[in-house]
Amino acid sequence: MTHALLAMNPVHRDPLFGPAEIARLTSLVTVDPALVVQDFTDISLEQVEVLITSWGCPPIDRRVLDRAPRLRAVVHVAGSVKHHITDACWERGIAVSSTAADNAIPVAEYTVAAILFAGKRVLPIADLYRRHQAVPDWTAAFPDLGNYRRTVGIVGASAIGRRVMHLLRRFDLDVLVADPYLHTGTAEAALVTLEDLLERSDIVSLHAPELPETRHLLNRERLARMRNSATLINTARGSLVDLDALTAELVSGRLHAVIDVTDPEPLPPGHPLYDLPNVLLTPHIAGSIGGELRRLTRTALDELERFTQGRPFAHPVNPALLHRSA
Amino acid sequence: MTHALLAMNPVHRDPLFGPAEIARLTSLVTVDPALVVQDFTDISLEQVEVLITSWGCPPIDRRVLDRAPRLRAVVHVAGSVKHHITDACWERGIAVSSTAADNAIPVAEYTVAAILFAGKRVLPIADLYRRHQAVPDWTAAFPDLGNYRRTVGIVGASAIGRRVMHLLRRFDLDVLVADPYLHTGTAEAALVTLEDLLERSDIVSLHAPELPETRHLLNRERLARMRNSATLINTARGSLVDLDALTAELVSGRLHAVIDVTDPEPLPPGHPLYDLPNVLLTPHIAGSIGGELRRLTRTALDELERFTQGRPFAHPVNPALLHRSA
Repeated sequence: MTHALLAMNPVHRDPLFGPAEIARLTSLVTVDPALVVQDFTDISLEQVEVLITSWGCPPIDRRVLDRAPRLRAVVHVAGSVKHHITDACWERGIAVSSTAADNAIPVAEYTVAAILFAGKRVLPIADLYRRHQAVPDWTAAFPDLGNYRRTVGIVGASAIGRRVMHLLRRFDLDVLVADPYLHTGTAEAALVTLEDLLERSDIVSLHAPELPETRHLLNRERLARMRNSATLINTARGSLVDLDALTAELVSGRLHAVIDVTDPEPLPPGHPLYDLPNVLLTPHIAGSIGGELRRLTRTALDELERFTQGRPFAHPVNPALLHRSA
Repeated sequence: MTHALLAMNPVHRDPLFGPAEIARLTSLVTVDPALVVQDFTDISLEQVEVLITSWGCPPIDRRVLDRAPRLRAVVHVAGSVKHHITDACWERGIAVSSTAADNAIPVAEYTVAAILFAGKRVLPIADLYRRHQAVPDWTAAFPDLGNYRRTVGIVGASAIGRRVMHLLRRFDLDVLVADPYLHTGTAEAALVTLEDLLERSDIVSLHAPELPETRHLLNRERLARMRNSATLINTARGSLVDLDALTAELVSGRLHAVIDVTDPEPLPPGHPLYDLPNVLLTPHIAGSIGGELRRLTRTALDELERFTQGRPFAHPVNPALLHRSA
């Protein structure tokens, strides 16, 4: 049987691998499921053919590869492989699979729920009801209420952005998309410039990767282009937004927001965003958490099975596209 | 041209009919859009062929019908017709159309968003983050977290219940349905008894009609069958639930809830449900509000157009089914 090794921060082993997953794993490969490596230094890699990696796997660099002559594949049970797959892996021709596509699912689901609740102003109305303990006049408070023919702007046609657009087809919403790599719109969304998108959207959702050129993509000037009372949703990365500029727009009440990621993260105690009725602030939970991690494991074990059968990965990582993905 | 009359509480005229809708209305029928009748007593009904009704339309009883010899149809721009369509209307053969199907759309959307947020415990985690101003240990707080292979129970295969089940197909959830009028399950949900559903579901969503026999459908004993930490969603009617029994389960923290309707409604000031971190309480907003009302008007004007062309309604009300619908 193929020899495999688990390499990740050991805290992730149990959430990813329950008894059923361990049973399937050990039926597919020769592996010690009790051994979870976070440092390759003192481990023999001589026999390892597949590394099963997750968050906290150290970089697989040339020195590691030199000690792993039989290594042919990495199955990553998490999102981005940027932190551990080095150029040396690609040069050696290591096949890399990632469950990034699975990780897009819960983020897209969180985003769609956030869009539907934002369109109806569900949380601000709940806050008014709780504070007044009487039926609030929501039409007066939010004249632009409702999920019918509102405009949603998707910033970034990433795997997550595309999945959000796909899910939004079921609703009576007009969808715009801005992405420097897209050349035409789709049946799901009209392609516009970022500036156009910000000026026309009732809800703006960020799905761009964290890159040097996307840092503060939403700066003070671009945030100012957003419509009054529009909602910004950020489930991507905190660095995409100038936090001070956004905080000013939210403290003034001009904008609403659903914020799952911030820079810094977590926010320092006492930060104004912790306590605004027009902000839903969550601590980076849109991605796979709890039982959602088992979805990643299912896909990774499918990939491992394909590898042991000599079949190519269904979800290979393409190194040529890594520079513009998350 | 066909003669029509608007009959509803006048507060609903402007939310339903904007300038574009008035223009289309007056192009289809002879009508005074400034005349909105809430009392038929002093109004000449001699010429009226179609009543365009909404919330607050008085009952169209025999005395009204006797004064409206040319009346042939009622186009209702709202949900239930139970409050104004009398048996005399059916006996006279009046054709009745309703936008109840449209009204199901926003309720189903609110419900799906509530299910996705409940599965991830988004609001309780946001509450922990806000109170601690540090990243909470959500796995410890909610060991059953996540929208993957969780079980959702739909109580009532009504138009709304069916739409919720349809929308849920896009997600990795196991769906159960309980409904005394269903004989088999569907591709979307397995048919079970209400007791089974309550015992097996992580999230229970009510979509049953308000009827004498559904009063306190979820009584103390049935609520006690729900799993620990399960979420109850009620966007249907407050009378379906024994509020005191539910309040006890929520104050103790054993259950979670998303509650859009209550009995009484609104809740009296000081009621415990106003201020629990495991409860999202909204003031009956899941149905069409704000711009969502224009979706009803669009459908109603389509129906009016069909009528003026001598075609049957696309959304006729079937009197034989009224007794078991909302």
